[in-house]
Amino acid sequence: MDSATTLAIARSEGRDCHCLTVDYGQRHRAELAAAARVAASLGAAAHRMIALDLAQFGGSALTDRSIAVPEAPGGGIPVTYVPARNTILLSLALAWAEVLGACEIWFGANAVDYSGYPDCRPEYMRAFEALANLATKAGVEERHLTLRTPIIALAKAEIIRRGGKLGVDYALTVSCYQAGAGGAACGRCDACRLRRAGFAAAGVADPTRYRARPN
Amino acid sequence: MDSATTLAIARSEGRDCHCLTVDYGQRHRAELAAAARVAASLGAAAHRMIALDLAQFGGSALTDRSIAVPEAPGGGIPVTYVPARNTILLSLALAWAEVLGACEIWFGANAVDYSGYPDCRPEYMRAFEALANLATKAGVEERHLTLRTPIIALAKAEIIRRGGKLGVDYALTVSCYQAGAGGAACGRCDACRLRRAGFAAAGVADPTRYRARPN
Repeated sequence: MDSATTLAIARSEGRDCHCLTVDYGQRHRAELAAAARVAASLGAAAHRMIALDLAQFGGSALTDRSIAVPEAPGGGIPVTYVPARNTILLSLALAWAEVLGACEIWFGANAVDYSGYPDCRPEYMRAFEALANLATKAGVEERHLTLRTPIIALAKAEIIRRGGKLGVDYALTVSCYQAGAGGAACGRCDACRLRRAGFAAAGVADPTRYRARPN
Repeated sequence: MDSATTLAIARSEGRDCHCLTVDYGQRHRAELAAAARVAASLGAAAHRMIALDLAQFGGSALTDRSIAVPEAPGGGIPVTYVPARNTILLSLALAWAEVLGACEIWFGANAVDYSGYPDCRPEYMRAFEALANLATKAGVEERHLTLRTPIIALAKAEIIRRGGKLGVDYALTVSCYQAGAGGAACGRCDACRLRRAGFAAAGVADPTRYRARPN
């Protein structure tokens, strides 16, 4: 949902978008096929998938099958947090951006209706942008690389309304942390709860396919 | 050479070292086996290899076989620069550090006898450390994660003398950007030139196995 909306906003601003999906060993592999569908539906110039087995490190319910995905809200940083995931995703995007000669990286992080992940905060995004400009030829050549996070300050309902206006088909998207192979959602994990509440608050019919009737 | 010396310094300071090697599609794959030998010889607590195919992005003589490794010194950022490589390496190290609960990442970057790579500069390292502390639980929990780069300001000859005192066997290490499968060096690329000049300046016999007599 967040990535799809971010892509739709970039497209609405006339960008040619090269979309990157990382197969990092996530439990919800259904999001990989969904990403390809979303990229095609929104007219991306390219979509690429790169494999990186973060399950080797473990430490998260999303990459270690022995850690259950929580189905009730908890406090603090949840076990679905994947250590350094956004830094890894952004560093891979940075690599491709540099090869392409792109001057912007767009990233669908959201700091409002989120799960308490440290690497979704605006101050983290500013630090990554500063790093990106030191890390690459862009910095040496005094071009500027910009990190765009257009939905970082939006509530889920606002994201849904914004994406809806831009023609995002949320039926194509997968948010559930334990989505089945076909993409059907559990309706119970954090990601499902935030998504469902977002559709309800936006007054938009929820197109998500659930495996079972949500609680 | 740089990584091995960095590991030896960390060991000399009493650290339990978990060593990470990234198989990123580098042309000089011989460095992967060399890394495992070096880690074992210096008493690392663990050594792990993670695969990530940066050849998908290309844009470097180290990951794209159609771009030749230069055998003469050039100006500017050379084609052996791998876009965002150090950011990717450090982000993977950050992920493992966080899972381990480590409070230090040691990185063998060198900004003196180096090849003009933007992501080897001290200001880049400071920016990554700042990012790391925002990116992870460490930042939220107000622990501090430190990026140690003990050889960043050393000339190659100083690195060789320092490592020699700490028992590094440089015959185990591979620097050559186009090393053969058995690790024999070309003697002509940037990495070979810097390494050979370092041994000469240190007054230490060069244990490197060359494929052909160096120019």
